[in-house]
Parts: sequence; structure tokens; C-alpha cells
Amino acid sequence: MVVRDKPNAFRLFFTLRGSIVPKILPQILFVALLGAGVAIAQHYLPPLLPDYSPFAFTVLGVALSLFLGFRNNACYERWWEARKHWGQLLVDGRSLARQANSFLDDEVEGAAETKKRLVHLTIAFTHALRHQLRQTNGWSDIEPYIQAEDHERLKRSQNLPDCLLQLLGQELGRCRRQGLLSDILIQNFDERITSMAGVLAACERIQNTPLPFAYMLLVHRTAYIYCLLLPFGVVGALGAFTPLLCAIVAYTFFGLDALSEELEEPFGLSSNDLPLSAMSRTLEINLLEAIGETELPPALKPSGHCLQ
Amino acid sequence: MVVRDKPNAFRLFFTLRGSIVPKILPQILFVALLGAGVAIAQHYLPPLLPDYSPFAFTVLGVALSLFLGFRNNACYERWWEARKHWGQLLVDGRSLARQANSFLDDEVEGAAETKKRLVHLTIAFTHALRHQLRQTNGWSDIEPYIQAEDHERLKRSQNLPDCLLQLLGQELGRCRRQGLLSDILIQNFDERITSMAGVLAACERIQNTPLPFAYMLLVHRTAYIYCLLLPFGVVGALGAFTPLLCAIVAYTFFGLDALSEELEEPFGLSSNDLPLSAMSRTLEINLLEAIGETELPPALKPSGHCLQ
Amino acid sequence: MVVRDKPNAFRLFFTLRGSIVPKILPQILFVALLGAGVAIAQHYLPPLLPDYSPFAFTVLGVALSLFLGFRNNACYERWWEARKHWGQLLVDGRSLARQANSFLDDEVEGAAETKKRLVHLTIAFTHALRHQLRQTNGWSDIEPYIQAEDHERLKRSQNLPDCLLQLLGQELGRCRRQGLLSDILIQNFDERITSMAGVLAACERIQNTPLPFAYMLLVHRTAYIYCLLLPFGVVGALGAFTPLLCAIVAYTFFGLDALSEELEEPFGLSSNDLPLSAMSRTLEINLLEAIGETELPPALKPSGHCLQ
Amino acid sequence: MVVRDKPNAFRLFFTLRGSIVPKILPQILFVALLGAGVAIAQHYLPPLLPDYSPFAFTVLGVALSLFLGFRNNACYERWWEARKHWGQLLVDGRSLARQANSFLDDEVEGAAETKKRLVHLTIAFTHALRHQLRQTNGWSDIEPYIQAEDHERLKRSQNLPDCLLQLLGQELGRCRRQGLLSDILIQNFDERITSMAGVLAACERIQNTPLPFAYMLLVHRTAYIYCLLLPFGVVGALGAFTPLLCAIVAYTFFGLDALSEELEEPFGLSSNDLPLSAMSRTLEINLLEAIGETELPPALKPSGHCLQ
Amino acid sequence: MVVRDKPNAFRLFFTLRGSIVPKILPQILFVALLGAGVAIAQHYLPPLLPDYSPFAFTVLGVALSLFLGFRNNACYERWWEARKHWGQLLVDGRSLARQANSFLDDEVEGAAETKKRLVHLTIAFTHALRHQLRQTNGWSDIEPYIQAEDHERLKRSQNLPDCLLQLLGQELGRCRRQGLLSDILIQNFDERITSMAGVLAACERIQNTPLPFAYMLLVHRTAYIYCLLLPFGVVGALGAFTPLLCAIVAYTFFGLDALSEELEEPFGLSSNDLPLSAMSRTLEINLLEAIGETELPPALKPSGHCLQ
Repeated sequence: MVVRDKPNAFRLFFTLRGSIVPKILPQILFVALLGAGVAIAQHYLPPLLPDYSPFAFTVLGVALSLFLGFRNNACYERWWEARKHWGQLLVDGRSLARQANSFLDDEVEGAAETKKRLVHLTIAFTHALRHQLRQTNGWSDIEPYIQAEDHERLKRSQNLPDCLLQLLGQELGRCRRQGLLSDILIQNFDERITSMAGVLAACERIQNTPLPFAYMLLVHRTAYIYCLLLPFGVVGALGAFTPLLCAIVAYTFFGLDALSEELEEPFGLSSNDLPLSAMSRTLEINLLEAIGETELPPALKPSGHCLQ
Repeated sequence: MVVRDKPNAFRLFFTLRGSIVPKILPQILFVALLGAGVAIAQHYLPPLLPDYSPFAFTVLGVALSLFLGFRNNACYERWWEARKHWGQLLVDGRSLARQANSFLDDEVEGAAETKKRLVHLTIAFTHALRHQLRQTNGWSDIEPYIQAEDHERLKRSQNLPDCLLQLLGQELGRCRRQGLLSDILIQNFDERITSMAGVLAACERIQNTPLPFAYMLLVHRTAYIYCLLLPFGVVGALGAFTPLLCAIVAYTFFGLDALSEELEEPFGLSSNDLPLSAMSRTLEINLLEAIGETELPPALKPSGHCLQ
Repeated sequence: MVVRDKPNAFRLFFTLRGSIVPKILPQILFVALLGAGVAIAQHYLPPLLPDYSPFAFTVLGVALSLFLGFRNNACYERWWEARKHWGQLLVDGRSLARQANSFLDDEVEGAAETKKRLVHLTIAFTHALRHQLRQTNGWSDIEPYIQAEDHERLKRSQNLPDCLLQLLGQELGRCRRQGLLSDILIQNFDERITSMAGVLAACERIQNTPLPFAYMLLVHRTAYIYCLLLPFGVVGALGAFTPLLCAIVAYTFFGLDALSEELEEPFGLSSNDLPLSAMSRTLEINLLEAIGETELPPALKPSGHCLQ
Repeated sequence: MVVRDKPNAFRLFFTLRGSIVPKILPQILFVALLGAGVAIAQHYLPPLLPDYSPFAFTVLGVALSLFLGFRNNACYERWWEARKHWGQLLVDGRSLARQANSFLDDEVEGAAETKKRLVHLTIAFTHALRHQLRQTNGWSDIEPYIQAEDHERLKRSQNLPDCLLQLLGQELGRCRRQGLLSDILIQNFDERITSMAGVLAACERIQNTPLPFAYMLLVHRTAYIYCLLLPFGVVGALGAFTPLLCAIVAYTFFGLDALSEELEEPFGLSSNDLPLSAMSRTLEINLLEAIGETELPPALKPSGHCLQ
Repeated sequence: MVVRDKPNAFRLFFTLRGSIVPKILPQILFVALLGAGVAIAQHYLPPLLPDYSPFAFTVLGVALSLFLGFRNNACYERWWEARKHWGQLLVDGRSLARQANSFLDDEVEGAAETKKRLVHLTIAFTHALRHQLRQTNGWSDIEPYIQAEDHERLKRSQNLPDCLLQLLGQELGRCRRQGLLSDILIQNFDERITSMAGVLAACERIQNTPLPFAYMLLVHRTAYIYCLLLPFGVVGALGAFTPLLCAIVAYTFFGLDALSEELEEPFGLSSNDLPLSAMSRTLEINLLEAIGETELPPALKPSGHCLQ
């Protein structure tokens, strides 16, 4: 995620930071060159090309704005929904730690140990979820927070975050059998874990179910056709200014298209994606602080205006 | 569901995979041929046709984009809502398994058996729901997970998934009578089953209540009228290029229309529908793993880029 | 609700089933005749009429599409929300039956009787809600499911469905006093009844609070003015084709308007309204089956492609 | 709220009932007169005015429809959300009465009295909420339902509805201390009261936080500028018909603007606002009926097609 | 937040209060001057500039209205969501106070003290949340409501509001250990605290995750390009009126852009932001009144029509 520092309007106009221009530069240049070629051809050659009425572009423009607008809304909602679920994870993690602090009496034997295990498993779940969503290997982040006896089971598991929730549940079962918590308070803890299972399933949904492929095809094709025909349509009226207008229009349409594509998969590492690393570090710090640990890892800082 | 593998822009332009072009090719060709006929007629015959001002198309275009845009949004929301409910099913299934593991003590007589039955009935519910939504016969998927004594009742039932929920409830009642679970913990399990009943009713709603039929009529008719009149409106300005423009416009409008129709019924087997088989297999694997079974069925792989 | 059977595109174009054309035929014909009159006048008379630029229609068209689009969205959402609440009723009814089956032990005296009464009252509530929403007299549907002693109170009641919920609550109170259910399980039943009260209030809200009347005025007036002025605006460009275009435009605008009006009150009996009778019959069958009754009423079939 | 009685299309066209025309008549007349002046000037004077191309209006029209559309959606959602919260109040009130009937045994000493007080306080809360939202003095509606000993505290309170919820909570505490209800059933009642607190806070939010003021400025100014420039832009094409078109356009834009303004504050007394008096009377009747009172106040009837 | 007092239409047109005109005046003036320059150049110089057809602006206008409309909706929703969460805080705070009043018996030793601490910590949480969101130092607002023994821990904490919730949880744990509340009633209190943790996480989300930076770039750049090219496009048709139209168009587009930017960060101190100070003072008054304190701080009044 690009961190904002309120640049002035002039700088903003020319910044490349967080911009999707570099990504779509080839397409913009191609359309501009095509515009230049058409303008030259129209000047030196007899008018071979028909006098396209702008009407054709109005018709196509309606369809294109329908597609781009819809896709943009849908992708932004995916991105924002993903962010909401990670916010819910913060709520669940912090509340679980708070409940552990409140309802597990330190004087009772085993309670302090259980509290620590519950909090550590929650931290491990956060890291495991992040690595699963980014398809990276996160064993080194997770290992410090799990017990040696569970290593084998976790490594064999087909869904690491879900397996950590099962371990959390198991810990809860142990609390109940040892009488550390009444069934009623167990309910409160169990609700938090079910809510975390909800976050997991929602993130899996966003990761595994992109927008229907046919939408991408419709949007891409219509945008390309539109921009490729544009020079022929405006050369009569604009002459030498054709390449400029074509480049501007290509920038707006391809730019929105490229941005939608980044937001569609909000868990990646590109500059507009969610800062999952920073968020899981925040939760890690909050939870370790809550159980009274004093050696806390540092909060992540943006590197080059970009927070991951 | 079409699986993405990030093809480059050029390939994307010409791919047929996941595209809805094959479905609407006849209509596109018809409109293109009509355009060609009109262009030829205009060239050789005296101008019998009035000089349609593009204005008429602007008026119709507003109505058409209103209809197509609305229908597209509504159908996409149905599709995405259906996906959310299947995600909720994952949450409920996994949480039920976790609760069974935590709160049913293996040492107590009958607990291990009950745990297995609860998880098996949940798997059976998932398969039964999928087959009911796809109107296929799924007895072979369900049978391994139910007990012989329930066969008769299930076969007679008018709503198989609901009947499986009733069996789950019955199992819960048995737990309570045998003292395996306190009333408070029973509540937690019962909430999960009620949530599954919610998923069932929501899927039935999406399946049984399509968009009002009159919308489809309005959209279809307006789109057809628009595309049939289009050649007459643009032939004056575009001449020989008329068929090209008509084909492009027909592609965008009929394409969006066809895609909306696929998404309107998200439980089918066409290439943009939800991969219910893969999702129920995932839940099956997760749940069997959770109760410690080691012979797991394999995860489903996409065949020809398409996951069902 | 019109039941779909996937007619081909050609038949679809000319079907009257579920179409709103019959409803708006007079208006369409009027606009077409007006168009014909204007075309004839323009041909034979000196050009008395000013040369309306299409610009005026663009301005009005923006306002009109704003109004129609907004109203259409709002009415569709009312219709779909109503459908969701009836889906929730299915969830609540089935879950109540499941809970009754699980938690009321048949061996205990009075439990079987209580179970039956709870389920019967739920069925009666469904029928009463439907009849109240359709403003029909449904005593014959309700009577078989209530006890003679409650007849008097129900007949006097100002809100029959609410009174049935009060009876359900009373039954629950009896369970508690007789010790059939612990307070904790009472909670589960009570939640279901509160949820049914939510469905009742939501349906009343949709029934009693239509879209603000001023919207309907704005939409109607703008649509009429637009269509009445249209012939004068297009006769210059289209000549003899004026009536055709006017009829088509009138069809799309009046059609959407008429459809929105049907959806605005989703509980009626017109062809795009919700099939409340079929849905309450479905719940009736599910619930009777759940408590083991074998003489079930038949599911409702669509008559003339229309399900009520 | 205007009550509908399905007038025919002709009458609908000319009705003033519920219309916002009277409110915006001065503006419409002003724009029409301006249009007339411009048309006369253009006829008799040399063409001093430039030949405004309609293009300028297309540009402004895009901005204006963006603003009007957004504001209209936002205000309608406020209105509908307000209505939903009042529906929730009905659910909470009726459910509280039902729970009181079910779980407070009339035989136990003090139970009947407590039941009556709970229901009476709920009715008082509804009246107090209505009067606070409409900023009227409602002490005469509230007084019959509260006890003399609480008068002082309520009169001193800075937030009367919240204070009534505190009294409801106090009553619940008394139930608990006297052993009328177990802690578990107390939870059920407490949830209802918390939900009523949610309704109160939501209504306060809608009342105290209008749309950002700057929106109103943008919308008003753009609409005025547009309508004031319009005559100059269309006089060339329309001549003597200029005032007619200007009046129609002013009607649609100012009409939508005025309607949005009414809906923005849904708790007022204008003809499109919510019928809070009728709704609180309905709840009053339902609740008194539920606790068996027979002298019920009459339901409110619309006066002059308008329900308040 | 600007407080409304219903100015008449004329005053409204010229008011600067709450307007975003001062913010965007330089840009408007620049565009107007550019328009003047272009108009003069066109009058005195030979037509060097091509005759831009308005078509180019129609194309760009579609993209621009897509961007502005989307961004405006997204930012308004952030603002309104933020307001809803602060409304939820009111619900939670008041309900916690009500529950404390109902369920903590004043006669039991320690109960009165606990009640006071719970309410004071809730007030402190509200102030701490406000200061964290506005990045101001709020220790003086918080200090009166916390105990000396917690000062050290709170000052060291990395997230002050979260730490206050941990203290609330600790207080609850103490209630339980001292037997002041049963586990069931503890659940009710705990739900309120979890809900406050939800408010905290949601506000952090809105504060830390602005709209993707690339949107701002797209919107800014397209709006600037559009307004800079506009004079060249309209000078042919409008002549000396060019600067006027350019200034009006710049006002609408830059105005919406500037307003969206204010709403995007709803917790600031600019004139359209949320009145957090007034809202936390309201909660403070409500809660102190609820526990019977009589020396209440005064409610905040708007200063210069602006409430903070």
C-alpha cells in the first residue's frame, strides 16, 4: 500500500509513485504511435479512410463505461471487503487476549500457560493466513509460536490456518476438562475462534474466486477495440493533435483497467495491495503486549513510500 | 469456473476459453450479415432508406444501457451471494468439527462415535446440497456418510438436505440425553446447524427465484431491436465498414447479456458457474482430516482450465 | 412468479407470457398514433412546427434515465428483500421443528403434544402472514392448526400473525413451567420466534411504506412528457418511420415503469410477484414431515406458467 | 406519508397531492419567465447573444446528473434506513411483551406488576423517541405510562428516551434481585433493550448528521446555474417553445432536489416523511393488547390522504 | 461539521460557510484566466488552433464522470460508515452503563466502586479513541477517568484505546472473581467490550487505509487535463463567454474532488468532518448522568456554524 504524504497538486501530476503508468506505458505508446501514423497518412495520402462519424464511438463508449464501471466497483469492493476481514481479525485476536486475561486466573495452576498458548496460537494463525494468501513459505514466522509436539501435525496439514484453529479449539477443550473455565465462558472464546474461521473462509473466497473470466475478456477486448479505432475517428477533427488525445484516452481506460486488476487480488505485493505484513505485525505487538511480554518486535515501516 | 493463468494481452484477445463468444456467434454473424446487406443496398440502390439520425440510437442506447447495467449488477450479486453462502458452509462445517473435537471427550463412552457421525452428516449435507442445486442424483456421494438405518427416511424425504439437518439435530438431542454435552455447549452446536439451514434456504432462494421474467424480456427485446436497427443508422457515415461496427456492438451487448444469464443461475455447470464440486471436496478433506482420518480423497483439479 | 422454461430467442421475442406489454398497450398505441399524426402533418402541411433539436431530448433523457434507473433499483431491492425475509421464515420454521425434535424428549409426558403445537402454530403463522400481506381472508387455512380455545382471542386480535407469535411464546412459557426445557434451550426457541417477529415487521414495512409518492409523480410525468414530445423531435429526421421509433421508445420506458410498479408491491398476485402460496405450502410440507406426519398436502404447481 | 389509492394515469398527471410542485413553483415560474424574455429578445433584437452550442449543457449536465443522482440515492437510503429502525422498534417492543408474557409467571407475587411496567415503559420510550425526533413536547403522551416516582428524574434528564431505557434496565435488575427471572432469561430481555438503544442511537445519527453541507451547495448551485443558462442555449433551436422546455427541465431538476431535501430529514411532518405517529400508535395497540388490556386507543387514520 | 440553519436559496447561492470554494479558488481562477487567454488569442490571431470537435470532451467526460462518481461514492461511504461506528459506541457505552446499574447491586460491597470504574473507563476509551484518530495528545481528557495505578501501563502502551479495553476486561475479571456477577451476566458485559473493540478496529481501518493512491492520481490527472483542454474546445462556439463556462465547469469538478478528499478522512478537523468532540462529550454526559453524578460538563456548541 502506498503511504500518502499529501504532495502538492503539481508534484502529484508527475509522480510515478503508486502510479499504474509504468505498467501500461507500452499500450499508451502504441496507441499514441498509431494515432501519429493515422494523422500522417491522412495528411499525405488521399482520404482512403471513411469519415467515421463520432457516433460509433458514442455507442461503444456506453458499453465500455458500463463494463469498466462495473468491474471497477466489483474489484474495489473485493479489496475493501478483504480489508474489513483483516480488521475483524484484529478484533478477534485482541478480544481473545482480553478474555484470556480476564477469565483465566493466574493463581490457578496451568492458567498462565494456557493463556500464553492461546495468544501464541492466534499470532501463528495470523502469520499462517498471510503466507497462505500470498503463497509464500512462512514456517519461520510461525514456528516460534507453536509447540514442538504439534510440528508434525501442522506440517502434514493441507490447510495450515485451519489446523491452527483446530489446535486453538483443542486448547479450549483442555481448559474445560481441567475446569479452568465454565461452559459459559468457553462459549465466549469459542465465538472468537468461529469468527476467525469466518475470516479464513472469506479470505480464501476472495483469493480463489476471481471475477468471472468472461468479464475480463469483455472489458479488455472492448477497451482495446475502442482505443485502436479511436485515431480513425478523431483524425478528421483533430489533425496533428490526434496522438495526444489518443494517449490521454488510453491512459484513462487502460489505467482504470490495470488498477482494477490489482485490486481484484488484494493479497498480493503490488503497490496498491493490502499491507498484510504490517497488519499482522501490529496484531503480534498488541497481543504480546497484552500478555505482558516486554520484548516486542518493531512495527513495520514503509520502504520507499510502500507498506507491505 | 475458469481458472486464470495470466495470459498475455495478445493471447487474451483471441482466446476462446471461458469466453461467451461461441454462445452468441450466430447472433453476431446475423447482425454482421445484415450490416453487409444494408451497405450493399445503399451502394447500388437509390437511397430508399431514410437518413436515420443517430439521435434515435442515443435514446434507445440510454434505455438499453440502463437495462443491461441493472441486470448485470443484479446477476453478479446473485452469483457472489451464492459464493458467500458456500463460504459460510465451510465456516460452519469446520467449526462444527472443531467444536466436536474440543467438547466431546474421547474417553467418554459414545463420544468418539457421536463425533464421527456429526462430521459425516455434515459432509453428506454438503454433497446433498450440491446435487439438489444441480438437480443431479447424488446418492452415491451421500451414502458412505450415512447410517443404514436412516436410508429409508432419507429416500422418502422431499428435501434431502433439510432431512440431513434434522438428523444432525437428532444426534445433538442424543448427546444431550446421554449427558455428553451440557445445554450450553449444545447451544454452540445448534447455532452451527441453524446457520447451515440458512445456507440451504438462501441457495434454494437463488435457485428458485430468478430475476423477474419481464426483465429478461425487456433486455432481450431492446438489445435485439437496437442491433437490428443499427446498420440502417450508421451505413450513411460508415459505408463498407458498417458490418465491422455492427459486429463489435453486437458482441458487447449480446456478450454482456449472455454472461448475465450464466451468472443468474450460479449453480449450473457452464464455464462461469461456481465450482461446487471442488468446494464440497475441499470441505470433505478438511473435515475428515479434522477427525483424524488419514485416507483422504484427492482435491479436484481443473480439467481444461475449468473447475467444477 | 413466471416459471422459466428457457424458450428460444425467437419465441422469447414474441411471447406475451409474463410480459408487461398488455398492461401498457394503450399508452404505446397512443404514442404511435400521435407519431403517425405528426408525420402526416409534417408531410402535407407547411412546417408549422419548429425544428426541435434533439438536444432538448438529451437533457430530458438524462433526467428520465436518472428517475427510471433509481426507481427500478429501489423497487427491485424491495422485491428481493421481501423474498429474503420469506427465506428467513423457512430457516426459522425448519430450525424450530428441528429443535423441537431434538430437545423435547418424546418419553416425557406432554412433550409430544407440545412439539406438535409449536410446529402447528408456526404453520398457522405462515398462512396468516401470507393472508395479511395479500389482504385475503385465510381463516380456513389457519383453523386446522390452532386449538379451539384460542379461536376467540385470535378472531378478536388486530394483528393475527403477531397474536400467533404470542401464542407460540405462551407455549414456550408452559414448557418452562413444566420443566420440559431448561432456560438455556428456551433461549434457542425464543430466538427463532423473535426472528419470525422480525420477518413479520419487515413484511409489514414493505407493504405499508411504498416509495415516496412524489417519486412516482416525477417518474410518470417525465416519462409522459418525454414520449409526447418525442414525435415532434424526430419527425424531421425519420419521416414515415416516426411512429415505429416512438412505439419502441414508449415500450422501453413505460415497460420499465410498469414493471417497477409491480415489483414495488411484491406481495400481490400479478405475474411478477412472489409465489407466497407455493412457499408457505413448501414450509407446511417440510414441517409436517419433520414431526413425522405422513399425510402431506401436495406441493403447488404453476398454472399457466405462473406460480402464486 | 401520502397514502396511495391508485389514481388513474390522467389524474395522476395533474394531482397536487403529495407533489412537490407547490414548493418549487416560484423557481419553475422564474425560469419559464426568463425563457420567455430570452425568446422575445432573440426575436426583436439583433443577435447579441452568442450561439451557445448545446455542448456546454452536455458537460454541465453530466456533472449535474452526477450530483443529483448521488444526493437522491443517499437521501433515499437515509429515509429507508430510518424506516427500518422503526420496524426494528416494533420487533423489539412486541418481543419484549411476548417474553414478559411467557417468562413472568402471573402466580408469582409482583410478576404481573413487573410485566405491566416493562410494557408501559416500552410504550413510553416509543412516544419519547418520536417527540425527540420531531422536537415536540410529548410529556402528555408519556406521562400515563410512567410512575409518579420517576417523574422528577425523567424531567431532569438530558436525553429522555435513554433515561427510559435506564428505567427499563432498573426494572430488569429488580426482577433479578427478586428472583422472578433467571440470569439466562434476563439476557433475553436485556438484548431487546440493547437493541432499542441501537434504534435510538441510529435515529439520533440520522437526525443530527445531515449530508455534508457542501453537497447541498454543489447541487443547488449547479442546478441553478444550469437552469439559468438553459434559455440562452436552446432559444436558437426552439424559438417560442423555449419557456415550455425550460419549465419542464426546471420541474425535473428542482423537483428531485426538493424531494431529496424532504427525504434527507425523514422524521419531519412534510408529506413524504415517515408516519411516526401512526407507527407508535400501532405499537401502543399491539403491546396493550398483548398484556390483555381491552380499552385500546384507536388506530390513526390518514387525514387528507396524509398519514403522520 | 457545518450546522444547518436553513438559509434561503439566494443566500445559499453566495454563502462561503462550509463551502469548498476557498480551497479550490486558485484552480478555478487559473482555468478562467486560461479561458480568457484562449478567447483573446482566438479573436486577434489567425486560427492556429485546430477546431477541436466537442467529441473529444464527450469521450474524456465519460471517463471523468466514472472516476469522480466512483470516488465520491466510496468516500461518502467511508464518512457515513465512520459515523455509524461512532453511533455504535454510543449504544455500547450507554448499554454498559445500563447493565452496570441493573446488575451490580449497590448493597454488595465493592459493587458501587466497580460500576463507577467501568463507566469511567468507557468514557476514557471514547476520549482516547478520538485523540488517536485526530493524532492529538489527549492525556488531560483521559487522566480524570483512570486510576493512578494504571498510569504507568497506559503511558507505555502502543495503542492507548486497546489498552483501556484490556483494563475494562480486567475489571470484569475482578467482578467474576469477587462473585459480583454470574458468568452469564459477565457475557453481556463482555459483548459490549468486544463491540467497542470492533469500533476501534473499524476506525483504525478507515484512518489507516485510504482509497488506493492510484485512484487519486487517475481522478486528479483526468480532471486537470479535462479543464486545461476545455477552453480550446469551446472557444469556437462560445467566444467571449469561454472563461465563464470554464470557471463553472472547474468549480463543479474540482469542487466534487475537494469534497471527496475531505470525506475520505472523516476524522479530521475540516468543516465537513465528523464532530467527534461533540459526540464524545455527549456520551460523557449520558454516562455520568446514568451513574448519578450531578456535576456534568456542558454540551459542546457549534462555533461559527461549525461543530467539532
